[in-house]
Amino acid sequence: MRILVTGASGFVGRAVLPPLLAAGAEVHAVSRTGGAAVDGCIWHRADLMEADRVHALVGDVRPQIVLHLAWCVEHGRFWTDPANLDWVAASLHLARAAAEAGASRFVATGTCYEYDWPDQGKCRECETPTAPHTLYDTSKDACRRILEAFFAQQGMDFAWGRLFFLYGAGETPSRLVASIARALVQGHKAPVSLGLAVRDFVDVRDAGAALAALALSAATGPVNIATGEGISVANLAMKLGEIAGRPNLVQLGALEDRAGEPPVIVADTERLTSEIGFRPLRTIDKGLGDALDYWASRLGQIDRTPG
Amino acid sequence: MRILVTGASGFVGRAVLPPLLAAGAEVHAVSRTGGAAVDGCIWHRADLMEADRVHALVGDVRPQIVLHLAWCVEHGRFWTDPANLDWVAASLHLARAAAEAGASRFVATGTCYEYDWPDQGKCRECETPTAPHTLYDTSKDACRRILEAFFAQQGMDFAWGRLFFLYGAGETPSRLVASIARALVQGHKAPVSLGLAVRDFVDVRDAGAALAALALSAATGPVNIATGEGISVANLAMKLGEIAGRPNLVQLGALEDRAGEPPVIVADTERLTSEIGFRPLRTIDKGLGDALDYWASRLGQIDRTPG
Repeated sequence: MRILVTGASGFVGRAVLPPLLAAGAEVHAVSRTGGAAVDGCIWHRADLMEADRVHALVGDVRPQIVLHLAWCVEHGRFWTDPANLDWVAASLHLARAAAEAGASRFVATGTCYEYDWPDQGKCRECETPTAPHTLYDTSKDACRRILEAFFAQQGMDFAWGRLFFLYGAGETPSRLVASIARALVQGHKAPVSLGLAVRDFVDVRDAGAALAALALSAATGPVNIATGEGISVANLAMKLGEIAGRPNLVQLGALEDRAGEPPVIVADTERLTSEIGFRPLRTIDKGLGDALDYWASRLGQIDRTPG
Repeated sequence: MRILVTGASGFVGRAVLPPLLAAGAEVHAVSRTGGAAVDGCIWHRADLMEADRVHALVGDVRPQIVLHLAWCVEHGRFWTDPANLDWVAASLHLARAAAEAGASRFVATGTCYEYDWPDQGKCRECETPTAPHTLYDTSKDACRRILEAFFAQQGMDFAWGRLFFLYGAGETPSRLVASIARALVQGHKAPVSLGLAVRDFVDVRDAGAALAALALSAATGPVNIATGEGISVANLAMKLGEIAGRPNLVQLGALEDRAGEPPVIVADTERLTSEIGFRPLRTIDKGLGDALDYWASRLGQIDRTPG
């Protein structure tokens, strides 16, 4: 199975490649910087904003499957980044190139922010409607609508992995888990909001394995990439403090809660577990512990309590 | 008021320019072929697929308003044309260019095919939901969603004119009114379906004037461009036959009805009439008569009955 992966050197991309390789796929990894972030792949350097280059590359590789992960993801900025429009355009060009090169399957990633989050209960792919919140999720949702119509017409399979709250090694340092873990391993106070919001946090390695399984499956349409379990931000922060052996450093309520944030965003993972046959391999304790180890190895020592 | 109009040499574009000029606007007309289809405009030749060229052009003109009409419209093919994806991409590039050049208003055109047509009653912009039918309307609706989010964030006004069933001089010869009119003025039989479908047909000159009024107004969001009156295809064909003085040539039932066509597609025009202050200037009899005259002048003689 020959698969072309965009955004391959990114946070999610690096986590998708090992399970694809382990499944025996011939993995063509595309990156703007061209860095060989994972061994065993065939790396290609390309800027997806250059439509002609994309057509030539996809025509050369002739993948059976395209797994499109690239998008603008600069932390704090991607919600409103006008580059979201360019990424819609680039994704549509890639879709046409894939169809013209004879690919039979196209898989791309959306976000849990596409959903009109229910006041109670979990987000279900086929029941929960979508609603616009930011330019980012509006662009993702609109892109999915076009791709769904296009690939249906082309007779190609199309799936859309909706990513929930990823964390883990290699995460942008200013994101939630990374910022708390970095403070803790350095012995600094870790200021957090009251943290009542409940979210579905998923280890990026599990998200990568789930996306790889989705890409190699025959499933079509939206599929939540998540654990199906919610945890409040406060509990997550306290867990990090306890695992690090420094619970007193976690300062709940020291930061303002973000206005307008929904109380609960948790996935229904029936499609992922039943249709794709995937289950997360790591508990939240294991994932958070590994995140602490990652930042400790980069930033300094830490007293890990056993267990 | 400086306005840049794309698709300016097209069927709708040619009808928009005169009312814009009459309103005193400085009209920059953009066309891929560069033909000066209407005098009094400043014509620019540009291919909207070339993002760099578009940025340079919009940066040079620095329009206050952009009226974006260009799209793939090849009759019979545009419903499924993969180029719909390219036109979404081109429209998003144009939107970014307009924002960067300091425009304060962006107006583009959608279609009545975006609606989830109600079984009874008219399509209302703020009440009738959208639903995907073809790649064309799905792409248009998704493009509108992105543009709405983008311009809201940019603090720019954005309006979306939903075009209903246009006809008139310069129409593609294979379209409904043109094909019947061409047969009639040549004395040929005009085969038509049973024609029970009721549609909101609007003279392209009225549609152009309505779009010009919309562009120069402060209205935002979707606005139907239509008459608000439905007529069955059978009645339309019979009217053409009667006006041409050749009713016997109209062969109702000679063609198959298209499967899956909705019985009624008619616009609520409250926004267009109340907010924009626009009313169609031509009755359907006047519009059809002029269409017959247009084809007669191009194809040959016709016996017009008086009235």
